[in-house]
Amino acid sequence: MAPVVVLVGPQLGENVGTAARAMLNCGLRDLRIVAPRDGWPSEKAQAAASGATVVLDSARLFDSVEEAVADLSRIYATSARARDMVKPVVTPSRAAEEIRGLAAEGTRCGLLFGRERIGLTNEEVTLADSLLTVPLNPGFSSLNLAQAVLLIGHAWYALGDDTPEHQPAAEGRSVAERKHLFGFFEHLEGALDPTGFFKTEQLRPTMVQALRNLFVRAELTAREVRTLHGVVTALGGRRKDQL
Amino acid sequence: MAPVVVLVGPQLGENVGTAARAMLNCGLRDLRIVAPRDGWPSEKAQAAASGATVVLDSARLFDSVEEAVADLSRIYATSARARDMVKPVVTPSRAAEEIRGLAAEGTRCGLLFGRERIGLTNEEVTLADSLLTVPLNPGFSSLNLAQAVLLIGHAWYALGDDTPEHQPAAEGRSVAERKHLFGFFEHLEGALDPTGFFKTEQLRPTMVQALRNLFVRAELTAREVRTLHGVVTALGGRRKDQL
Repeated sequence: MAPVVVLVGPQLGENVGTAARAMLNCGLRDLRIVAPRDGWPSEKAQAAASGATVVLDSARLFDSVEEAVADLSRIYATSARARDMVKPVVTPSRAAEEIRGLAAEGTRCGLLFGRERIGLTNEEVTLADSLLTVPLNPGFSSLNLAQAVLLIGHAWYALGDDTPEHQPAAEGRSVAERKHLFGFFEHLEGALDPTGFFKTEQLRPTMVQALRNLFVRAELTAREVRTLHGVVTALGGRRKDQL
Repeated sequence: MAPVVVLVGPQLGENVGTAARAMLNCGLRDLRIVAPRDGWPSEKAQAAASGATVVLDSARLFDSVEEAVADLSRIYATSARARDMVKPVVTPSRAAEEIRGLAAEGTRCGLLFGRERIGLTNEEVTLADSLLTVPLNPGFSSLNLAQAVLLIGHAWYALGDDTPEHQPAAEGRSVAERKHLFGFFEHLEGALDPTGFFKTEQLRPTMVQALRNLFVRAELTAREVRTLHGVVTALGGRRKDQL
């Protein structure tokens, strides 16, 4: 149960469109629009939505915030600035945790976004349980409507997403078995021996270790080991011609 | 040491401007631009930056990605799609952790962002250590340039930000001492007694508990307790007139 996005008094159709796009990026589909200044439906919104028409086509229009949130049980008012109001203030990630927890209990939540320049009125904020503020560079914190929807929507999306934080380079590929790596080491070191690369027998073990560590660290795939064999053969061949 | 943002071959000046705005929102200031299609400097970029001129004015122009990243030691190539390349893939939050860790060791990192429609070429991606992909709705994952910069920049910003996730409603206010709450309970219950609200003496304790729990849960400030005294007095007065 994803949170509902309520755009309160949006001025430009374009901004409703880009907000709808940001919603769909984050898997949010329930858009409610309160008293849009330039009317509804909006061709400019459609053009700016870059294909997020499923969100715009099912958007619902309301005359007041009270009507738009009437069926919701927990409401967050987004605000760029602190309000002199006795109300908790939460970050997007905290709100996302709360919303997912409440959804699991069957409680539907809504996110209020205010007008482009002036935001939500204090009367509108009073209808919400919590203020929701995105931590940003305090010297330059103004976001446009779609960016605010994107950052807050993405905090919600990310909590439910199971993409691994880090997928190793060889993900889904055949990582070289260690014996193939050892075979490559022998090939490389054997090709280097006659060239004088190792300078002295005393220096050789340290230099071999440095080379082996470099290639072990690269976490080579089986295919890359074959490529490296080819590289040594190619260079070794040239070297022999030069001898 | 914040990461450097490298915009590779941006087509529209507007997008460079909105990307600069997103950068400054997240405290990123080092912008490098590789071969912008419509030239540089750009009036459209300035107009779209909504005041983030400090970023645009210090932006540096390069002819190639190689030159733009020459002084960096760890590079992330942003990509909306998987590439058939042996390279780790990380999320924005993982990249943010790595970048902050590396910065602490004096290693400077860069984030490559590709052209609006076609992204980075495979040759450009090959210059990077890791692919950086923002997890989004797989059915609708296209972001514009500024939105990509914002989501990735914000992951980095948020890691260094100490805004509490949750600031209680009464933050910075005088929370009511419990004795003042008890005083209010006595006032309320005493005003209710003669009205028959509690129906019977057996029911009274349960109803009192329900009322007290409600007001305790609200975590009232000292001022709100005074307001509620006023409410009870006002209503009680009316009630007496009606008796």
